[in-house]
Amino acid sequence: MNIDHRLNELRTFMNEQGLAACVISNPDHQYYLSSFKAILYSRPILFVLDEKSTSLIVPALEEVHAKEEAKIDRILTYYEHPEKAKEGIHPYQHLEKLLVPYSTGSKIGIDMSATSACLAEWIRKLGFTLVDVGQKIVEMRYIKDEEELKLIEEAGRLANLAVDQSLKACREGITEIEMDAAGNEALFKETAKKHPNSTLDLFAMSPSGIERTIMPHVFSNTRKLRKGDVIIHSRQVALNGYRAELERTVVLGELTKEQRRGFEAAKLAQQASIDFIKPGVTAAEVDEVSRNVLREAGFGQYAIHRAGHGIGISAHEEPSLRFDNDLMLKKGMVFTIEPGIFIPGIGGFRHSDTLILTENGHRLITEYPRELEDLTYR
Amino acid sequence: MNIDHRLNELRTFMNEQGLAACVISNPDHQYYLSSFKAILYSRPILFVLDEKSTSLIVPALEEVHAKEEAKIDRILTYYEHPEKAKEGIHPYQHLEKLLVPYSTGSKIGIDMSATSACLAEWIRKLGFTLVDVGQKIVEMRYIKDEEELKLIEEAGRLANLAVDQSLKACREGITEIEMDAAGNEALFKETAKKHPNSTLDLFAMSPSGIERTIMPHVFSNTRKLRKGDVIIHSRQVALNGYRAELERTVVLGELTKEQRRGFEAAKLAQQASIDFIKPGVTAAEVDEVSRNVLREAGFGQYAIHRAGHGIGISAHEEPSLRFDNDLMLKKGMVFTIEPGIFIPGIGGFRHSDTLILTENGHRLITEYPRELEDLTYR
Repeated sequence: MNIDHRLNELRTFMNEQGLAACVISNPDHQYYLSSFKAILYSRPILFVLDEKSTSLIVPALEEVHAKEEAKIDRILTYYEHPEKAKEGIHPYQHLEKLLVPYSTGSKIGIDMSATSACLAEWIRKLGFTLVDVGQKIVEMRYIKDEEELKLIEEAGRLANLAVDQSLKACREGITEIEMDAAGNEALFKETAKKHPNSTLDLFAMSPSGIERTIMPHVFSNTRKLRKGDVIIHSRQVALNGYRAELERTVVLGELTKEQRRGFEAAKLAQQASIDFIKPGVTAAEVDEVSRNVLREAGFGQYAIHRAGHGIGISAHEEPSLRFDNDLMLKKGMVFTIEPGIFIPGIGGFRHSDTLILTENGHRLITEYPRELEDLTYR
Repeated sequence: MNIDHRLNELRTFMNEQGLAACVISNPDHQYYLSSFKAILYSRPILFVLDEKSTSLIVPALEEVHAKEEAKIDRILTYYEHPEKAKEGIHPYQHLEKLLVPYSTGSKIGIDMSATSACLAEWIRKLGFTLVDVGQKIVEMRYIKDEEELKLIEEAGRLANLAVDQSLKACREGITEIEMDAAGNEALFKETAKKHPNSTLDLFAMSPSGIERTIMPHVFSNTRKLRKGDVIIHSRQVALNGYRAELERTVVLGELTKEQRRGFEAAKLAQQASIDFIKPGVTAAEVDEVSRNVLREAGFGQYAIHRAGHGIGISAHEEPSLRFDNDLMLKKGMVFTIEPGIFIPGIGGFRHSDTLILTENGHRLITEYPRELEDLTYR
């Protein structure tokens, strides 16, 4: 990753806005700007950038980890053992030292939607003025560089392989979580074989049956699959922190006529947005295209979410393919395409794929059959 | 869960502090106060409490889910499809409606460490004064009720079973993530069998070798285990949102003499804190007891984190068993006990168990051999 390039762009912005320094709390922004990611943020971690250097404030138990992995000029550690307590036991002690050189009234950038009210209040009380830099970093992350795309592409291949294994496990009596587990297992094996010294992060959900598939986001549980179930199997895989998503609506046995209409409409809506998306169109247009298919089929009111979202370091990131987003799409952006309908008493229907915008169109990085006959299990 | 009891306690506090309403952002606090948990919070979810009623502000795709699971008086939905846009497309639109009845200058409680600077700023601009209620809710969560303890206890049993399977997979050439996967699989199967309609959340990490075990928190990766490795296999399991933790340091082959000294010291330190902890002692004393064992063995400087932490809905929660926490412990609190040492060039050593404080002592809810000979694999 070309972190220097990212820091330069952010520094240019800071210059334009007259910011003395930035304090970044969002873990995904921190990863983007320093290559450092922690398992847990229950002990605060702060990334600080000024004109000359970058600093990471970490708890003692992340010190070695940060030294290993962070691309950073300086690591400041706070401690929770008495032997070192006098070097600082709270992250704000280090932050204060970093900010003191700036005169009262200086502007400090923070990512306001991820910074706690606590921290914002505390910086303000030091005498500084706060300015949001979160939106700037969000926008920097719109377009992925070559190295990011390579990881996302491989995450797509892994997602494909895992979905395949999970769907093959689909049968009467198996639970949603076991269906997820089947794909996880394949994923662990393949990643272990192909990617030395790499991390894997995975998410799967498989809501099943009429009542559960109409909830677009729900944890898999131990409900057992039954004949006649519609199941939405959804999966994200992150390889070294970069994600891809693949999701298929599948059927155990037979759908009713009404369900078949829902399945077909969702499938056609997704295909319409996939066929349409390319650099130069707007996010809202991509949403509109699939929404029109669903409206024509009489399902407009059940299409309760956007057509898709950006994906990369975060599970959901900007740009959002939403009806009110007039942003023009560009080469190098990565999206999920997943218009869905969720019909009470009938069920939920949604496929999701991940694609990269190229010069003149796009490249799908997940690929799996989308037809009902290919997604019916007995 | 006796949610009414929790709401009453919070309302009493609000009364004492003169708060008109509370707006809670922390997802774990929201779960505690409403039984509602979402998979993702990239679309904001807010819990609002006043004297008379509770409200949950959710995005459209959580509406059915919230109706199913939230114990709440009122659900307010914001939308991202044009058909419903006029009913609100942003959570703050609903929040404003809820807060408008209160006169300018009224005090509104927020959980400041989890509330975004964005939201805090926005409430303040409506003319309200902000007061932190996060610490109060943190303290309410110290002591678990019977139903919570039952879930945590069963999570402990599941963690035990999974750790057992992961450790049995420990052999030369297997990767860290595959070791995790072995336990995951057992966990999925057992939960599917024993707990209908339940959710399972799991976390595992297995840093291996000298360089990686000295990082107390690090994602498992695809490093292959080698003869002579020390491995810290750590696991949390959450059943229906309630967690337990179990961790063992194990060995593939033989330890060096220095490593054996580290292993024994960490084991004895943990045993000392387990033997010591009970209602009436302070959090700091529990830390001190194991720290003294490590100091006497000459490892004090490598004991870089607290002896343990509260656990329940959150992976880490208060009370913290930390050198500077003078809180007196009480019956019904749940802790991990996990003093660890991380010695550059030698390796990391830590066992972790979860226990519940009882009237006169405690009850371990994880149990697995702790001796080197039982934790050595060939």
